[in-house]
Amino acid sequence: MSRFHDEIREQPEVAARLLEQSRPAVEKFGARFRETHPKGFVIAARGSSDHAALYAKYLFGRRNRCLVALAAPSLFTRYSSPPSLEGQCVIGISQSGESPDVIAVVEEAVRQGAMTVAITNEAESTLAAASELVLPLHAGAERSVPASKTYSASLLALALMSQAIDPDEEFGAALNRVPTSITQALQAEEKLVPLAPALAGPRAIVLGRGFNFSTAEEVALKLTETSYLLARAWSVADFEHGPIAVVEPGFPVLLVGGGGSVEADLESIAARLVDYGCRVIGLFDCGRAPSGLEATAVFDSGLPEELTPLTLGVLGQLLAWRVALARGVDPDQPRALRKITRTW
Amino acid sequence: MSRFHDEIREQPEVAARLLEQSRPAVEKFGARFRETHPKGFVIAARGSSDHAALYAKYLFGRRNRCLVALAAPSLFTRYSSPPSLEGQCVIGISQSGESPDVIAVVEEAVRQGAMTVAITNEAESTLAAASELVLPLHAGAERSVPASKTYSASLLALALMSQAIDPDEEFGAALNRVPTSITQALQAEEKLVPLAPALAGPRAIVLGRGFNFSTAEEVALKLTETSYLLARAWSVADFEHGPIAVVEPGFPVLLVGGGGSVEADLESIAARLVDYGCRVIGLFDCGRAPSGLEATAVFDSGLPEELTPLTLGVLGQLLAWRVALARGVDPDQPRALRKITRTW
Repeated sequence: MSRFHDEIREQPEVAARLLEQSRPAVEKFGARFRETHPKGFVIAARGSSDHAALYAKYLFGRRNRCLVALAAPSLFTRYSSPPSLEGQCVIGISQSGESPDVIAVVEEAVRQGAMTVAITNEAESTLAAASELVLPLHAGAERSVPASKTYSASLLALALMSQAIDPDEEFGAALNRVPTSITQALQAEEKLVPLAPALAGPRAIVLGRGFNFSTAEEVALKLTETSYLLARAWSVADFEHGPIAVVEPGFPVLLVGGGGSVEADLESIAARLVDYGCRVIGLFDCGRAPSGLEATAVFDSGLPEELTPLTLGVLGQLLAWRVALARGVDPDQPRALRKITRTW
Repeated sequence: MSRFHDEIREQPEVAARLLEQSRPAVEKFGARFRETHPKGFVIAARGSSDHAALYAKYLFGRRNRCLVALAAPSLFTRYSSPPSLEGQCVIGISQSGESPDVIAVVEEAVRQGAMTVAITNEAESTLAAASELVLPLHAGAERSVPASKTYSASLLALALMSQAIDPDEEFGAALNRVPTSITQALQAEEKLVPLAPALAGPRAIVLGRGFNFSTAEEVALKLTETSYLLARAWSVADFEHGPIAVVEPGFPVLLVGGGGSVEADLESIAARLVDYGCRVIGLFDCGRAPSGLEATAVFDSGLPEELTPLTLGVLGQLLAWRVALARGVDPDQPRALRKITRTW
C-alpha cells in the first residue's frame, strides 16, 4: 500500500511494545516526580508532537491537577529571553530528537535546574542527551513524512507518566487495553468510506472539545499535510465565539468525539451545523453519534474518554490517508516537506 | 460607513483614554504583584481575547521572565477538575465580562487563593465582580460583533501591566506613543487596496512569529468571521513542520511582521513561498518588507517590536473590513453570531 498506511497499521504493536518496554523509564520518572514535586509542566514541541502536548494539558490537568504551559520556543531562541522555569517539570517531545528549538527549551530548563524529560523515538538523539530523563517511544523507524505511530506512542507515553504520578487501578487496566482498542479502530477502516467525499476540498473544519480537541488539531494537520485541503480545527467553544460565521450550506465539518463530559457540546454544535445545511461528518469512539450527520464512523472501544484520543487519532490518520488517495496525492511524501524540520 | 469601521477608527482615542484612566488600576496591580510574587500567569479567554492572552505569553515571558499558561476552561467547567493555581496570577479577559467559562476559571482561582485580575470593558460585569482586581478598558460600547477597539485595548492593558511589574523608561515612552502610532496605522489604510484581491477566498494562510504570532491569529479570525474565507494562522516555525505542504502556486499567504528578532524568519519563509509561486502579501510595521511580494502595506511607527501587535492588529482589522466589503458581506453583523457568546 504505502509506508504511511503500513505505519498506521503498526500501532497496536507499537503500543504493546511501549507498555512493555517503557516500564523502567516510567517508574524512574514517577519516583523523580515525587522527589522533586514540580508545581506544573512546561512542554516544548512542534507539529504533531505539539498536539500531544495539548493532550497532556487536559490529561495532567484532569488526572494530576497539574497546570500545563505550552512553551513558546522563540522566547528561548530568537528572543534569548526565556521565562523562569523554576520548579517546573519541562518535557521536550520530538520524534527525531533533533528539533533545535525543542532542544533549546530543555537546555535552558537544565541550566535553570528544572526537572527535564525527553519523549522521543531516538534514544541517542541530542534531545535525549540534553534531558535528565528519557522516555524512548520504541516505535521503530518512522519513514513516512506524516507522523502516525510516533504520535500515538507520544500520547501513550504521556498517559503512562500521568498514571505514574497518580496510579489508579481502573486507568491502569484501560492503559493495558490500548493495543486492542487501536486494533478495533483499525478494523473500523471501512466505515470511513462514506466520510471521504465531504473532504474533497478545498477546505474543511474539524471540531472537538476537551481531550479530543488535540485530536481535532492532529486530524486537521494530517488532512492539511497529506491531502492539501486547508483544514482548521477549533474547540467547539472557541468556534462558537466567532469562526462559526464562516460556515454556509455545504461547508464540510468533521466532528471528533469520545463521549464523556463534552458529549452534549458536540451534540449541540452538530444540531446547529446540520440546521445550517453543512456537510457534517464525524468520528466517534463512544458507540453513538449525534443525529442528522451525513456520514459517521462510530465504534466503541470501551476506553475512558481520556484515552479515546489514541483510537480516534488512528481513525483520523486512516481518514487522511483515504482522502489523500482520493485526491491523487502521495501521502508518504508531502510536497515541500522533509522528515526532520529544523527550526530555531 | 459601518460600525466596525467606526470602531476601528476610534482606537487612537481609546488607547489615549486607557493610558490616562487606567493609571490607578495599573498601579494597584503592580503593588499587589510585588506583594504576592506570583510564580507565573494563567490566562482565561475566548476568541479575540484569547489572542490577547497569546500576546501576553510572549510579552510577560520576554519582559518579565514570567511563564504564561493559557487556561483550558473545560477543565473547570465540563470536567470539574481544575488544575492547581496556587501561587499564580490568574487573568480573565472578556469584553463583556459575561463569558461563563472565563468567569469559572477566575472563580476557581479565588477559591484556591490565587491573585485574580479581570480585563474587561464592563467594570460592572460578573467577571469584574468575581476578580480581586479589575482593569477596565474604558473603550466605550463596542456595538459591532467583530471586536476591534477592545482587542487593542486588551493588548495595551497587558503591556501596562508588564510595565508595572518591570518599569523601564524606554518602554514607558513607547507606550505613550501608542495612540499616535495607531493613528499612523489608520493613515496607511489606502496601502491595503492592492492586498485585498489575493484574499478573494475561499482560503488563506496568515503567518507571523513571536509577538506577532498573536496578530496573525487575530487577523485570521477577523478575516474568517467577517469575510467568510477560511483563514488559518500559524507561527512560521510550526508552519514549516507540516502545513507548508498545503501551499501551491496561487495560494494566498499573508505575512505579518514588526521587525525585531524574528525578521529573518519572515524573510526566509517569504522567499520560499514566493519561489513556490504563492500570492504572498504582507503587513509590516518596521519600514521594510521582504522582496518579491505581490503587495505590501509597509509603514514604520517606530514602536519596539513588542508593541507592533497594536498597530498591525489595527491594519489587519482594516484589511478584514475591506475584504468583507469586496466580498459583499456586512462586516458589522456576521451571520450566525451574537455579540456575547456564552460558552461553558
